[in-house]
Amino acid sequence: MCQLLGMNCNVPTDIVFSFTGFAMRGGHTDTHHDGWGIAFFEGAGVRHFVDHQAAIASPVAELIKRYPIKSTNVIAHIRKATQGRVALENCHPFVRELWGRYWVFAHNGDLKQFAPTLDGAFRPVGSTDSELAFCYLLQQLRRRFGDSRPPLADLRAALAELVAEIAVHGTFNMMLSSGEELFAHCSTQLFYLVRQHPFVTAELSDEDVSVDFSQVTTPNDRVAIIVTQPLTTNERWTAFAPGELKLFVDGVPQAAPAD
Amino acid sequence: MCQLLGMNCNVPTDIVFSFTGFAMRGGHTDTHHDGWGIAFFEGAGVRHFVDHQAAIASPVAELIKRYPIKSTNVIAHIRKATQGRVALENCHPFVRELWGRYWVFAHNGDLKQFAPTLDGAFRPVGSTDSELAFCYLLQQLRRRFGDSRPPLADLRAALAELVAEIAVHGTFNMMLSSGEELFAHCSTQLFYLVRQHPFVTAELSDEDVSVDFSQVTTPNDRVAIIVTQPLTTNERWTAFAPGELKLFVDGVPQAAPAD
Repeated sequence: MCQLLGMNCNVPTDIVFSFTGFAMRGGHTDTHHDGWGIAFFEGAGVRHFVDHQAAIASPVAELIKRYPIKSTNVIAHIRKATQGRVALENCHPFVRELWGRYWVFAHNGDLKQFAPTLDGAFRPVGSTDSELAFCYLLQQLRRRFGDSRPPLADLRAALAELVAEIAVHGTFNMMLSSGEELFAHCSTQLFYLVRQHPFVTAELSDEDVSVDFSQVTTPNDRVAIIVTQPLTTNERWTAFAPGELKLFVDGVPQAAPAD
Repeated sequence: MCQLLGMNCNVPTDIVFSFTGFAMRGGHTDTHHDGWGIAFFEGAGVRHFVDHQAAIASPVAELIKRYPIKSTNVIAHIRKATQGRVALENCHPFVRELWGRYWVFAHNGDLKQFAPTLDGAFRPVGSTDSELAFCYLLQQLRRRFGDSRPPLADLRAALAELVAEIAVHGTFNMMLSSGEELFAHCSTQLFYLVRQHPFVTAELSDEDVSVDFSQVTTPNDRVAIIVTQPLTTNERWTAFAPGELKLFVDGVPQAAPAD
């Protein structure tokens, strides 16, 4: 199984602290050594870094830890291959364009007997169940909503149906963002927290590093971090319920739609 | 105007030497300081680096100069904005998926009164004429050939028609690759050379750096370099003819199809 890390904030924020702890799991404190990747939105643009080397051995991961790229939406992934060989084209996150926006997707889990019919609009380049699920998601969204992006509530409702349909085939913890929002779906395991005023000092669980966020933030900053395993030892992480699809906007988990 | 750099080889080769000279033009020996980008194919996978900072000031460009990423097809670009603001989403090269492969595209030039009808299959995220041309190219290829990639000769013939149609609107020097080949079209200015046995020492024109390629190659290696302005002072560069579309495979410019 792989591990996921997502960030959604109201002001561009660097992910150096969280990524430092997360990347340790890519071959050091954990066995996720079959590649890694991270995508940062900057406006509508995306910086996309993938590597089939273990995150702890990767010069590109080293760059990310040192270079504070500021972003309001980030999705990162460290891979332990279950389906698809160790190769660059199988590293998450994946990026495709829909409705004139880039969409970024990463998945943790394993899908069985998942062979949806693709119409050719989005086709996997690699051989993972994950990229196949991403292509299917985008295809179905485009089929349902045509050529223009629907209101967020409609998008959320459609995604809830689609992820439930895919999750029937196995474990489907996933994150999806177009740079304006971040969707996170939990099949089995996902946690989140919101950092906001008053900020505290956070201590990484995977490395002896701490940061006093009150020194590097303003009182208006709000940052949601979503991750497979809590990253810090002294903050309160909230577990997702199995089957839950959460939507984060500006660092705030949005209330579930009324039934 | 921008500058383009492409590499097509028969064995994975690093582009550190050529990129070092090229990146100097991004704000140092030349005025292309409105962003830069580079994409490396590794098999079907792509490493894609873009930055809206000048290449000489970019930590990511620094990484590329130090980290020998080996690839058989590379496209790089340094930007001087003519259309579209300085923003990440306007940095070349652009990447899209078609026929289950990533396609990488970069453009030098300026298109006027270019407003093709897009059917929604590929839509620009940014605001450049370049990304619009790329989306139009892929859309037309998909319309013509449907859901499967045609033989290379057919693809070449279709591209020749399409680039001629686009070039009516202005300057359209461009490079396009799916990782198996590299197409380069010259409207106004493009040069290439093929490095092969016996290899010599090459001297960069933009920086006091030379490399003895005989020390870092095998006799079977063959590397084509395509660029807006020759990169070295002691090698023989061949100019493209205006209107010429060249196809490079395994480091070899392919003979033009018979009329």
